[in-house]
Amino acid sequence: MRSVTDAVDLLRTASPAAVDVFTRILTRGPLSRTDVARLTGLSQAAITKAVAPMIAAGLVADHHDSAANGNGLPGRPASPVRVVPESLVTLGIKVNPGDIIGVATDVTAGILVTAHLAVVDTGFAAMVDAIADVVQRLRELLGDRAERLAGICVAVSGDVDTVGGVVRESALLGWADEPLGAALHERLGTEVLIENDVRALTIAEHWFGVGVGTSSFAIVTIGSGIGCGLHVNGEVVEGAFGVAGEIGHLPLTSEQYVCTCGRRGCVEAVASSSAIVRAVASAQSTPVATIDDAVALAHAGEPAAVEAFDRAGTVIGTAIATVANLTGPEIVVITGEAVADYDLYDQRLRAAFGAHAFGAAGNCRIVIRPHTFEDWARGAAAAALRALVLQRYAGLGAAPKDTEHTLRGSSAPA
Amino acid sequence: MRSVTDAVDLLRTASPAAVDVFTRILTRGPLSRTDVARLTGLSQAAITKAVAPMIAAGLVADHHDSAANGNGLPGRPASPVRVVPESLVTLGIKVNPGDIIGVATDVTAGILVTAHLAVVDTGFAAMVDAIADVVQRLRELLGDRAERLAGICVAVSGDVDTVGGVVRESALLGWADEPLGAALHERLGTEVLIENDVRALTIAEHWFGVGVGTSSFAIVTIGSGIGCGLHVNGEVVEGAFGVAGEIGHLPLTSEQYVCTCGRRGCVEAVASSSAIVRAVASAQSTPVATIDDAVALAHAGEPAAVEAFDRAGTVIGTAIATVANLTGPEIVVITGEAVADYDLYDQRLRAAFGAHAFGAAGNCRIVIRPHTFEDWARGAAAAALRALVLQRYAGLGAAPKDTEHTLRGSSAPA
Repeated sequence: MRSVTDAVDLLRTASPAAVDVFTRILTRGPLSRTDVARLTGLSQAAITKAVAPMIAAGLVADHHDSAANGNGLPGRPASPVRVVPESLVTLGIKVNPGDIIGVATDVTAGILVTAHLAVVDTGFAAMVDAIADVVQRLRELLGDRAERLAGICVAVSGDVDTVGGVVRESALLGWADEPLGAALHERLGTEVLIENDVRALTIAEHWFGVGVGTSSFAIVTIGSGIGCGLHVNGEVVEGAFGVAGEIGHLPLTSEQYVCTCGRRGCVEAVASSSAIVRAVASAQSTPVATIDDAVALAHAGEPAAVEAFDRAGTVIGTAIATVANLTGPEIVVITGEAVADYDLYDQRLRAAFGAHAFGAAGNCRIVIRPHTFEDWARGAAAAALRALVLQRYAGLGAAPKDTEHTLRGSSAPA
Repeated sequence: MRSVTDAVDLLRTASPAAVDVFTRILTRGPLSRTDVARLTGLSQAAITKAVAPMIAAGLVADHHDSAANGNGLPGRPASPVRVVPESLVTLGIKVNPGDIIGVATDVTAGILVTAHLAVVDTGFAAMVDAIADVVQRLRELLGDRAERLAGICVAVSGDVDTVGGVVRESALLGWADEPLGAALHERLGTEVLIENDVRALTIAEHWFGVGVGTSSFAIVTIGSGIGCGLHVNGEVVEGAFGVAGEIGHLPLTSEQYVCTCGRRGCVEAVASSSAIVRAVASAQSTPVATIDDAVALAHAGEPAAVEAFDRAGTVIGTAIATVANLTGPEIVVITGEAVADYDLYDQRLRAAFGAHAFGAAGNCRIVIRPHTFEDWARGAAAAALRALVLQRYAGLGAAPKDTEHTLRGSSAPA
């Protein structure tokens, strides 16, 4: 196999048409060159020309080759091509208040190795250290495969400026305007992509999950936060200013409920795990410290606990109706840690959705799908790959930064 | 100039790449073939090959040709090309409860002629007659130019199934499940596209207005209804089931307000013109019959009228924050007949937007832009053109329907 630099350089310099070709083979392959031509609207000759260097760089192979050795011979139009899963490795890290989960995946988002690290101090400096430790652990676990490392992405909940690598606001972590990308770059000596966690999960679903063959979908996460990833018109919705899918902060409940973000009437003010715990605790004589306590009380029929989950289910269903009325997804996938106790939300959620979905928007399918924390980390790994393929991120193993910047280097900071 | 059939057939059979080339020239031209290659990611040779039949069919011309005569000579890469405005004509009809406005436009959405018809009976059969009359009037006004007619679109407010040509629900017109497309097809002997009016306006803005050079935008209409058109990831959001942008029916106000759609808490239940009139009338001893009466009372400082507009401004601002938090538009354009009295909404609208926009989503620019009813009809004409270009609609002047259908004709309804 060629060096990872060849593959990364090819992706970095690919034309928009070649990017389209690679993406189709990645997400829909194995595909014949004829099918790629049909899907992209390019000529067969253009496909053959675009695929040849991908085969030479070891990114793509003829499907029936026993070894993905990239012999570089032009294939016949009907001979199917596929990506070579082991050609590139990306790392995805999901940061939670209590722990950090990291995975290394191949090009098809298949998990190769996993690393967990429990953390106590969620302060920014301590978390940067912990993330760096997880990256180091994943490299060790990968062994020789670490040579094929092409990108790292860290996923954080909250308002994330992906372009600047800044976590602008993360209520869960208690961070505001933290330059996570720059800090990790300095620490690891390599560029690291920072992404909102729900958007990263949506990217993985778009390329490797529910999004394949679906015109539009939404992922709704319930648990410590209430989030949403949207996929519309062939792409994940990113927002002109990096904010999109913020259903946790739609003003869909009464103004009497104040959110941790400071706003009034937010969905999270009644539907986040901590809001539910607060509501149940205020009505109990015995202490209620965790969401598990609240779940146990609700299952036991304790009225205040039942009411708290009812209120949460109602506002989440209303939020999903809002998403449906505005963007009209084909499928809504509900996931997140609270899915384990989905029975407590289901009835009110569906009733509120039914009451507020407008016309045919109510036809969207609502499915429940548990995601593990590894799945979230895998989302970050998929986001690193996507940023590389879409040329929004130089990645690891890349050639030195473009010469124009180097020539101007005299005025750059050291 | 070649016959309109040549141009329409070319668009009907164009490859996806050729559609992309034509769309770029249409919306961004004049453009050199080099620029088209850069924008589409196709090779210069592919551009030259794609443009040649467009020139031959009279759809595109070299920019510096004094006459758009389509000489079919391949141009040099740097020589700019542009669409020929007069190559095709489309009709756009906007249906209101009190009148029907029709325009004929050229390929660049330039209005050629206009026709108005006041209507009293909004029943379905009478409206079909009235729409047919407006089409006939536009044909007469066009004279010889009617030969270049390539498509007709009728825009209606409400839940419209564009694929089936059915108005599923239009509270304003009092229609439910009306087969407008089929009725007009029978009446006019030609296929007619049916589109939601706000989406049609969004299509026109996408190709010929604020959308040119903007990554994402929303159009919010205020007046007899509250609507929204969204443009995200390079395309208008249509919704998997034909419903999108329904901000009028987001549950953002108190459950005490019942909407004309039957749901509770909808934006329209307090912010539509009729809701405002109802609220003001219930507090007055003198009759308040129209929105103009309510506006006059609010301008005179009558407390109930001021409060009604305040409540409307608040819920509209909240709805715009909801759109921003979910889809992150770069610009929000507020339009619709109530824009004439925008001073009554402004303060509360901006305050509510500021209170509920999440993080950087609040950076989106809110601009006020009056649209005339001709602009709405022009939106429908642009929607007819877009459907033709994107091959979702056979259009007028097209060759007979595809042979497969004709061969199966024995089982088709007469």
